[in-house]
Amino acid sequence: MELRNENKSSILLLHNAMIVTMDSQSRVYRDGAIAIQNNLIIAVGKSPEILPQFSSLSPQLVDLSGQILLPGFINTHVHTSQQLGRGIADDVDLLTWLRDRIWPYESNMTEQDSFISTLLCGIELIHSGVTCFAEAGGQHLSGMASAVEVLGLRACLTESIMDCGEGLPASWAARTTEECIKSYECSVISRVQSQKDLFMKHHNTADGRIKVWLGIRQIMNATDRLLTETRDTAEKLETGIHMHIAEIPHENQLIVETRGVDHGTVTHLEKIKFLQNNLLAAHTVWVNEEEVDCLSKAEVKVSHCPAAAMRMLGFAPIREMLSAGVCVSLGTDGAPSNNRMSIVDEMYLASLVNKGREVFSKGTTDPTALPAETILKMATINGAKSVLWDKEIGSLEVGKKADMVVVNPSSWSMMPNHDCISSLVYCMRTENIVSVMCNGCWIMKDKKIITIDEVFFMHRKTFYQWPSMPLLNF
Amino acid sequence: MELRNENKSSILLLHNAMIVTMDSQSRVYRDGAIAIQNNLIIAVGKSPEILPQFSSLSPQLVDLSGQILLPGFINTHVHTSQQLGRGIADDVDLLTWLRDRIWPYESNMTEQDSFISTLLCGIELIHSGVTCFAEAGGQHLSGMASAVEVLGLRACLTESIMDCGEGLPASWAARTTEECIKSYECSVISRVQSQKDLFMKHHNTADGRIKVWLGIRQIMNATDRLLTETRDTAEKLETGIHMHIAEIPHENQLIVETRGVDHGTVTHLEKIKFLQNNLLAAHTVWVNEEEVDCLSKAEVKVSHCPAAAMRMLGFAPIREMLSAGVCVSLGTDGAPSNNRMSIVDEMYLASLVNKGREVFSKGTTDPTALPAETILKMATINGAKSVLWDKEIGSLEVGKKADMVVVNPSSWSMMPNHDCISSLVYCMRTENIVSVMCNGCWIMKDKKIITIDEVFFMHRKTFYQWPSMPLLNF
Repeated sequence: MELRNENKSSILLLHNAMIVTMDSQSRVYRDGAIAIQNNLIIAVGKSPEILPQFSSLSPQLVDLSGQILLPGFINTHVHTSQQLGRGIADDVDLLTWLRDRIWPYESNMTEQDSFISTLLCGIELIHSGVTCFAEAGGQHLSGMASAVEVLGLRACLTESIMDCGEGLPASWAARTTEECIKSYECSVISRVQSQKDLFMKHHNTADGRIKVWLGIRQIMNATDRLLTETRDTAEKLETGIHMHIAEIPHENQLIVETRGVDHGTVTHLEKIKFLQNNLLAAHTVWVNEEEVDCLSKAEVKVSHCPAAAMRMLGFAPIREMLSAGVCVSLGTDGAPSNNRMSIVDEMYLASLVNKGREVFSKGTTDPTALPAETILKMATINGAKSVLWDKEIGSLEVGKKADMVVVNPSSWSMMPNHDCISSLVYCMRTENIVSVMCNGCWIMKDKKIITIDEVFFMHRKTFYQWPSMPLLNF
Repeated sequence: MELRNENKSSILLLHNAMIVTMDSQSRVYRDGAIAIQNNLIIAVGKSPEILPQFSSLSPQLVDLSGQILLPGFINTHVHTSQQLGRGIADDVDLLTWLRDRIWPYESNMTEQDSFISTLLCGIELIHSGVTCFAEAGGQHLSGMASAVEVLGLRACLTESIMDCGEGLPASWAARTTEECIKSYECSVISRVQSQKDLFMKHHNTADGRIKVWLGIRQIMNATDRLLTETRDTAEKLETGIHMHIAEIPHENQLIVETRGVDHGTVTHLEKIKFLQNNLLAAHTVWVNEEEVDCLSKAEVKVSHCPAAAMRMLGFAPIREMLSAGVCVSLGTDGAPSNNRMSIVDEMYLASLVNKGREVFSKGTTDPTALPAETILKMATINGAKSVLWDKEIGSLEVGKKADMVVVNPSSWSMMPNHDCISSLVYCMRTENIVSVMCNGCWIMKDKKIITIDEVFFMHRKTFYQWPSMPLLNF
């Protein structure tokens, strides 16, 4: 397979592929072709119909016979800052995980650490077919942005903000509500990075691949004032808000005790009118029926992270959310919570966990719950809706950006292939992802990332030596 | 890395590896070496201590620097006959799965189908680091045995027997209890394959790599007479019994109604004295505290299959079983129940599922439940105990057979590596398995199976053409 990035204005024609469009009619073309010009899809359909249309324009032809073409996966909850912390908090309880391992690690990161961490995370994401991700709210957005720009990915970046809460590292605990709110308006704030500056500097940069969102870590680290100011600022900036919501029973209990509502975080957020259609709620495990309705009515998006939920949080009522019309997408969470950073694995898990969870309501598992097609939607078009980008990505349709993934199903683990969609969700492994295109450019070809020199990084003995080394081939 | 099989009587010395022995003291050698002669481990320890002992004997040296050496994984519940049926029963309810899809498929298999199915299954197992498996009870043991012999794997093969039950395919429903029992004693039985013949013909063949076990499909397909005769025959033959036990609530309910016990299958099997230390109980999901005690006292082994359980059955009380001293190992189940046939994935899942399951007893997940080391034991030494083979396999110790796996952790998905054991369980993917040795012979080197020609098979258009083709390179 020859894949080229040069001569961008010419037309690239991928043909002979099984194309899974994920469009509103779930169209699949067994012998499909797709035409790309600059960063846009200009045609998609059956090869015998598409090829003649472009023959006079001498398109670059790429024969993908035997391969499957899909929209790029969208990882709607990932802590890029935590990539270097993979394995530092395995098999420990939640408070040890947070206060003794993750917060001390994160609060000591430099911007260069954030750059390296995001770079490594991005490499793993690309290998799993991700073309776009939503940062969960980490450290040093400028470091993240540099890495995303270099890798060629698309991302909604967020630096989460905290103005209260127990057990915080000293440098974070010193931040006042006033300072946090000021950071939305002013350029220079002591102790708090100016959110305004970050937005002005990075939003819509990297050929439009980077968006800057606002971030609340979780309700236990946010006063109501910070919440409502964040909501209003996001509305003004026309951007999204990323927040961990209803992760553990303790969180709901604390909110009942301290903020005078009868259930938990979602009930309280509804009360203070924080629930809006630009809110991406991560995890959202401990919600009752009324709260699911609130999420649905407000058009809040939910990022379901099956591995992290199983390990640290619990079973979110995903089937109920989908039935109520909530847009649910998939996330990997961060490396110390999972520890595999692959949306391919999360698809497999989302199915298993949610079929299994039915035991506790019905007395038996339900193998029909969350069928393969539903899961594939969560990883693609629902992901796009969750990051407020579905007009441009999430499906292979004319007029959308060319963000896509080539899958080679010719491996023993995907044979025999009786049903393409179920095979992609239940059998595919990360290693079946062979090439990835984002914004019309190949960022991985034949399993090699082409935007950076992977071999150079792999041979460094420790990651912390890297920042002092010249970064080759950027 | 140069790996050779020739000149078997000479000594092979693998050195410079991180060796995870899984011995009774959980020894790990950071710079380890292991010496192999014929099919046996003759030394294991630190490289600087082991190498000089053999230098005068001109051993073949293999430098495994940067790699991890482990005992081969043992998959204690796998339906090799179902490999060709992967994807034929996704997203359907359990009765449709069994009666409309799997049983019609399995009951129509020929011996050649069984050979091909086991061959494909074995290829996938080897790629995931499996050196030994326990067949769950499929069709045509002779077909399975041929495939296992060719692949170079170790296996406990079983052809499960049924003498009652609803919804069986016509050819199976016609079999009487009398015929089934006779098959343990006689060579020629109409409608039932002689179990005696299978045992005589295949037990301890293929350089001792093949054992023949007896198999009961499940209690709903076995009269008490068949159960007790099977128990007595296994005792006489000094072999094991493989049986699906307490899979779904309906099974327990039926046993309560029809066989006059107060809980379910395990209670009934205890009453008829079927529970013995040579019984391998698959799944064993729906058991109460007393039944867990029965399993422990009788030294019954349990095969936990996390993916299949989540999808089809429910959450087995694995933590409680381990606490009660039950030997629990890991299985993939069959391809239509899972659909990934990788013990590497099952390790990851076993941890997630069992940490998550604690929600339902404690109100919150418990990230400390089933830590990484426990999971790794389940896939190795507990697997060996489950297949009654722990005197010879399951750990890297002097005197044991050389069944082992080489892992290359130099991939983005395993970086950084803060803890070797947790990294193997939580981060490793199937693609990190690079070489596999069984019974002193390399059966996979650098991700290529060397006992058969994978490329030849991969290029056949349909599997059913294969039996009529000459099988190259055997």
